[in-house]
Amino acid sequence: MYQNFEPRTDPKTSAPRLKSLRAQMAEQGLDAFLVPHEDEFLGEYVPACGERLKWLTSFDGSAGSAVILAEQAVLFVDGRYILQAPLQTDKACFEIINSQETPPTQWLKDKLPTKDGFVLGFDPRLHSIAQIEKLEKALQDKNITCQAVDRNPLDIVWRDRPAPPNYPAIHHPDACAGLSSAEKRTNIAATLKEKSLDAALLTQAESIAWLLNIRGRDVPHTPLALSFALLQQNGDCDWYIEPSRVSASLLAHIGAGVRVFAPTKIAEHLRAFHKKRVLLDPECAPVWFKTCLAGNFIVGTDPCLLPKACKTKAEIDGAKAAHIRDGAALCRFLCWFESEAPKGQLSEISAAQKLEAYRDATGLLRDLSFDTISSTGAHGAIIHYRVTHKTNRAIKAGDIYLVDSGGQYEDGTTDVTRTVLVDGASPPAGALAAFTYVLKGHIALACARFPQGTQGAALDSLARAPLWAAGLDFDHGTGHGVGSYLSVHEGPQRISKNGRTELQPGMIVSNEPGYYRAGAFGIRIENLQYVTPAEKIEGGERDMLGFETLTLAPIDKRLIDEKLLTAQERDWLNAYHARVYKTLSALTEPYMDKATAQWLARSCAAI
Amino acid sequence: MYQNFEPRTDPKTSAPRLKSLRAQMAEQGLDAFLVPHEDEFLGEYVPACGERLKWLTSFDGSAGSAVILAEQAVLFVDGRYILQAPLQTDKACFEIINSQETPPTQWLKDKLPTKDGFVLGFDPRLHSIAQIEKLEKALQDKNITCQAVDRNPLDIVWRDRPAPPNYPAIHHPDACAGLSSAEKRTNIAATLKEKSLDAALLTQAESIAWLLNIRGRDVPHTPLALSFALLQQNGDCDWYIEPSRVSASLLAHIGAGVRVFAPTKIAEHLRAFHKKRVLLDPECAPVWFKTCLAGNFIVGTDPCLLPKACKTKAEIDGAKAAHIRDGAALCRFLCWFESEAPKGQLSEISAAQKLEAYRDATGLLRDLSFDTISSTGAHGAIIHYRVTHKTNRAIKAGDIYLVDSGGQYEDGTTDVTRTVLVDGASPPAGALAAFTYVLKGHIALACARFPQGTQGAALDSLARAPLWAAGLDFDHGTGHGVGSYLSVHEGPQRISKNGRTELQPGMIVSNEPGYYRAGAFGIRIENLQYVTPAEKIEGGERDMLGFETLTLAPIDKRLIDEKLLTAQERDWLNAYHARVYKTLSALTEPYMDKATAQWLARSCAAI
Repeated sequence: MYQNFEPRTDPKTSAPRLKSLRAQMAEQGLDAFLVPHEDEFLGEYVPACGERLKWLTSFDGSAGSAVILAEQAVLFVDGRYILQAPLQTDKACFEIINSQETPPTQWLKDKLPTKDGFVLGFDPRLHSIAQIEKLEKALQDKNITCQAVDRNPLDIVWRDRPAPPNYPAIHHPDACAGLSSAEKRTNIAATLKEKSLDAALLTQAESIAWLLNIRGRDVPHTPLALSFALLQQNGDCDWYIEPSRVSASLLAHIGAGVRVFAPTKIAEHLRAFHKKRVLLDPECAPVWFKTCLAGNFIVGTDPCLLPKACKTKAEIDGAKAAHIRDGAALCRFLCWFESEAPKGQLSEISAAQKLEAYRDATGLLRDLSFDTISSTGAHGAIIHYRVTHKTNRAIKAGDIYLVDSGGQYEDGTTDVTRTVLVDGASPPAGALAAFTYVLKGHIALACARFPQGTQGAALDSLARAPLWAAGLDFDHGTGHGVGSYLSVHEGPQRISKNGRTELQPGMIVSNEPGYYRAGAFGIRIENLQYVTPAEKIEGGERDMLGFETLTLAPIDKRLIDEKLLTAQERDWLNAYHARVYKTLSALTEPYMDKATAQWLARSCAAI
Repeated sequence: MYQNFEPRTDPKTSAPRLKSLRAQMAEQGLDAFLVPHEDEFLGEYVPACGERLKWLTSFDGSAGSAVILAEQAVLFVDGRYILQAPLQTDKACFEIINSQETPPTQWLKDKLPTKDGFVLGFDPRLHSIAQIEKLEKALQDKNITCQAVDRNPLDIVWRDRPAPPNYPAIHHPDACAGLSSAEKRTNIAATLKEKSLDAALLTQAESIAWLLNIRGRDVPHTPLALSFALLQQNGDCDWYIEPSRVSASLLAHIGAGVRVFAPTKIAEHLRAFHKKRVLLDPECAPVWFKTCLAGNFIVGTDPCLLPKACKTKAEIDGAKAAHIRDGAALCRFLCWFESEAPKGQLSEISAAQKLEAYRDATGLLRDLSFDTISSTGAHGAIIHYRVTHKTNRAIKAGDIYLVDSGGQYEDGTTDVTRTVLVDGASPPAGALAAFTYVLKGHIALACARFPQGTQGAALDSLARAPLWAAGLDFDHGTGHGVGSYLSVHEGPQRISKNGRTELQPGMIVSNEPGYYRAGAFGIRIENLQYVTPAEKIEGGERDMLGFETLTLAPIDKRLIDEKLLTAQERDWLNAYHARVYKTLSALTEPYMDKATAQWLARSCAAI
């Protein structure tokens, strides 16, 4: 079982924990203290020992932060969590603020008192250089000291804090990666040389996993071995991870030039680089490293970021294979669900369990990509809903059921959302129109052709325009990057209002417009797609890029209001369904069964 | 006559001028020197005395810059001018580079030698704070000194340089502006107070024109009185302009609290503000002012920028009136052109002269908004083509003729492009399809509905998507802001890849997608439109914004491939044409005549 359904937190714990944190803050002379979701590796998933925000606030979303003052405590969450956070936290302890409306830095600027000697504390290992620079700039006109703490006061009062993960790092086959670690290190080292850099400090666990062709299991759902690394201009690499976690055979696989050191060595090693040119990415490097380098570093982007995002042919081939396997498992689930759900015996949990079982039956599942979002009716409007025994809801006829899920396979990471009608009663008013607008947006993005140099931001509006035209919108990005047996949320590319990265061939992104009616239902249609040179067109003059869809599963035709589709949109849907049917119905046991093949034929028939 | 057709420059002058500049550079110890298009006011239009780039390079576009070295000289121009610049310059003197492919700063970083003691000179009055900061950052790793010169070496060798303009500033009626200057100063002063600012230094002539309700005639086509101003927290304003240019009656109109000083006084006055909090906009303030304030200033946006962009009801009403009047003049021209052009006697110049005559016949024209772009056939592909006696071309049957023009009226500034077929022969292959794709993009933007907070960048792709789908694109922004009897290119809003300003009600923007086939023809369809709350829609949940079109003139139906239009697009076109016909045919002499009314009926008939 890769997912459990226990409530993870208990709001009642917040009051005493807050009290003890405040006492410790007072002892350290802090008037305010920042508690981010991120741990020392600044990633989305954190191991149990790094779940400081959850421990304090009992909010368990994948992003957020808190500001603690002596008499006040504020929890910031984004639009995805604005319905969930109040249900999970003690409202007597925390005020909840939408960080998209009022970013924490803005709040601090507006609300912190301008008082001589006011001290705002933060843990320099848990905040990026960019975050702290922004914070200091925002507060420069106030008489406030931003103080990096030596010992995190929360860590001091968190007495039963779990130990850090200690799993062995594992080998990721070169055949899956498409390039050996030695080749990657040579390539990246060449880019360092070009910029006259002596070294690059790698602080993102994903970058290290990619560069060294290694994986791990330190955090849930993303196969990471949390560590840091220093890549030098000659391609040599110092890897900071407990040496007991790296076997000799793994080291041999990674190749010559990689030395393993205990993480405690890094500060000392960096001291030798004080006078050299070391690249640090201010967006993802903890500000603590700036101190280690005595403030002397070269600002730049993590050099692994872009090469990791642009998948190799082997990675794209792997993604295709993973999506066929995963699509078949999802279809077995959807076929089962269509016949079972109307009987009224299913719950959100039992549905999620069945879906996991089908994925597991492929024999190749390593983990889920994230906790399955199995939500029916009003729960569908909670964008990042995680069902627990406390919230579990029966699935009823006429419900709109939304399932957002994915699998981690060695050859690829999947992420797919389907929204289906539970037969036997009429869907809620307006659901078909909304579903169709979402589908129109999805198709517009899937079909987009665009020139080299186009940023994700330019494509975001294509997926929203049909909803905007109907006076509707959704409060999350349209698409995120996806890793190759790595993080299901991977940068730098994304398709959102703020997606400034230019899309390049080989990048995998999700295409997931949605619509959410609070208290009623949620709709999302999500496929993964990758950027590829677009087919030449008669009369076309410029080289264009486009997308090829990876995800294979029918889109529920019962929820489509056909008269709202253009002929071109109908053609896209029919062509997509024909491809889904052709690809998946050709599979055999254990991936496909007869009932599912028959269901596929029906579900993929042209409209 | 507001436009003349003389070739403005002669490439042959460049070699001797470059030689004398280089001698002067050597005398000042400069290894390289920057020559921007902008003058001390950093605006788009400059008076004759500020045309340094044109004097040196003989390129007369509205944007660009040059880098002069001892043995090399480079002229940077953007995509609009990449065909024009080589025709105007001496290629033995200047290498021409597309600044959108290689920005000057990037070129300097890549190409300047890393040589001890290399000095790059610039005139600190001609570059913004942001430009110089970016330059210094880009060159920080090279051993180069960026040196602000005391006396511009080009000014020293430019012996017959014209005197600065000395026209009186004139009164802009409060009834046109919608707010008195006193009201505006009170409003802006309140925003200064909110931010605890003592003063804001206004360095944009447009901002001063708006704030003081004044206009002038210092530069072509934009009614500016070039000057600086210091607005203080109490609403008082020190205006730096030759006192002889400000009459007592104008001063009375502006209202109490405005003091006039000679421009030479500003440095001394600013010295009194060294210790105070003075707002400076680094994007538009010359870096020289930073020195005047001893480097001590508050970074912010020109406080007039956003209020000026969001037009008052009086300004929108004025814009509507101006567009009816201007649309009628354009229609008289288009009617005349449709019957005359096929006879083969017209030229680009005679057409532009006729259009100006019709605008002038309204009796209310103050100036053209810019030199009319009257271009036929291959000239249409030169995006900012300005016809001269040297380039003037006969208009022939089968030509695609593109006319981009506008008028300055006291109640509003217009800017409109129409592309029409000259009857009597077939248009070039592909012209109809391209015109229709451009039209589809234009309609998509005209119809767009979008939520509060949407940036111009999000809408840019809506206008491009139909071209992208056909493998085509255009190399300029889709839309720019437009002033109210002010600059025809006004920030901060724009609809382009880099348009980061959120669109707000009252903002006027152009909608002008295009298509250009070098050596063959150019197509552009441009209307002005303003942002307005969108009409409520049945089932709509969110407040949306949309556009209302200001420009009134038929779009040439002969160039439309009807089968490429959707029903919705056809409906938009027919509704737009019905409105054009209804509004303009109701006019009488001197705005409308019988022949034009009949032509309008035909041109606006539904398809």
